[in-house]
Amino acid sequence: MKAHRLKFTIAYEGTPWLGWQTLPSGRTVQDALESALSKIAGVTVRIQGSGRTDAGVHALGQVAHGDVPGDSRLGASDWTRALNAVLPASIRVMRAEFAAADFHARFDAKAKTYRYRIWREDVMSPFEAGRAWHVYGTLDMAAMKRCAALLRGRHDFSRLSANRGGVSDSKRREHPEDVTRTLTRVEIAEDHEVIEFEVEGDGFLYRMVRLIMGSLVHVARGRASEDWFASLLSAPDGVKSHHVAPPDGLYLVEVKY
Amino acid sequence: MKAHRLKFTIAYEGTPWLGWQTLPSGRTVQDALESALSKIAGVTVRIQGSGRTDAGVHALGQVAHGDVPGDSRLGASDWTRALNAVLPASIRVMRAEFAAADFHARFDAKAKTYRYRIWREDVMSPFEAGRAWHVYGTLDMAAMKRCAALLRGRHDFSRLSANRGGVSDSKRREHPEDVTRTLTRVEIAEDHEVIEFEVEGDGFLYRMVRLIMGSLVHVARGRASEDWFASLLSAPDGVKSHHVAPPDGLYLVEVKY
Repeated sequence: MKAHRLKFTIAYEGTPWLGWQTLPSGRTVQDALESALSKIAGVTVRIQGSGRTDAGVHALGQVAHGDVPGDSRLGASDWTRALNAVLPASIRVMRAEFAAADFHARFDAKAKTYRYRIWREDVMSPFEAGRAWHVYGTLDMAAMKRCAALLRGRHDFSRLSANRGGVSDSKRREHPEDVTRTLTRVEIAEDHEVIEFEVEGDGFLYRMVRLIMGSLVHVARGRASEDWFASLLSAPDGVKSHHVAPPDGLYLVEVKY
Repeated sequence: MKAHRLKFTIAYEGTPWLGWQTLPSGRTVQDALESALSKIAGVTVRIQGSGRTDAGVHALGQVAHGDVPGDSRLGASDWTRALNAVLPASIRVMRAEFAAADFHARFDAKAKTYRYRIWREDVMSPFEAGRAWHVYGTLDMAAMKRCAALLRGRHDFSRLSANRGGVSDSKRREHPEDVTRTLTRVEIAEDHEVIEFEVEGDGFLYRMVRLIMGSLVHVARGRASEDWFASLLSAPDGVKSHHVAPPDGLYLVEVKY
């Protein structure tokens, strides 16, 4: 019986979850999705995401693929409805669609967009707890924006990433040790008490967005110079940044194929 | 030792709480605030809110008053900071200020504003779970708006309220059996997948906003006529509406004094 490959676009509120990637404890988004899929399919179904997200990180458009039995009579929108009836409210399948048998959520990804949200009022909104980074005090937004502009283009991001047993984005298959990434869009928007940082690129190293954000805030707080930030991108043997922003404010917005 | 009366403006994400008003179980917003205040004051402090909110209902600007010992050296903003350091993240004191010794959060309230949020996409956002009412399917927004317009002004709202051991808003002290209320502002705004209903009035009966919203949606879904809605406000002996919207979408926005 030929299997059918499905492509899922998934949103999740990451606060209650230990991240995307399956763990023995089972308290991950992937575990919850595989459990729901297997229940509906009647057989064990495994899925592959476009990449990991850390514990507490959110997604508006994570993408994953998985194979369901070919004798299933469910249409794509039936899968969406059935999965959402089984999943907890903090995880929603926004869309399910049939894909080519060789579609791969990780290796076929061409670009990703991440958003990072900061709440800058003295008192944190109870509606933003777990969903934004509470940064109070004066921020030099002009300095933050000048530094952010440096990020555009192709750079060695090794000093804005954390070590792990290998990077996990789409560039790994062919060039596992390549630490250069190209950022095609870097934007900072301010709307009252919220600062939104949005970045699109061809791939992201482990903790890269959180280290970029933490380092930008470090400069905006006046604790490091713009030269220090520039050295993270260009110095031949500069030190790594260890200013990592909390997971609360990070959202995987979109994966492009 | 003369006590000092404090006026607190409080925001809370109501999902984890059994409502505002103190209960033996202690899982209410008032209980959490009294516990934090008592810990900081070193003596038991009780507070009085502007009115109750049901389990799961949210607030952006609930108001309460309470008396702290007169020998406390804490300034108003010290109280804000100290309380927020002790309170869970789902409850924030947005502002604390010293008030006249006879200020009363409930009896002095002149007007209240409530907001009700509806999410109308097929798939509920995981970020809106508990924070909006998921209403899918076609809605006749023109009919909803015509009915909402009927609400403005002074009406007998007894058929849009639920029975309880007495109403609990500011009009109760002098006229406990008065079921007329004046709504000075009724607005419906649509922004993509969100419908926001906002209403300001001199007081609200028990469950009144949730029954108004539930009845408006009943009409917008085409399950009842606009005449039926009108009869809830004007018929001499019409039946009560039992179409109550869930607490998830309701926010106490502001209390005016």
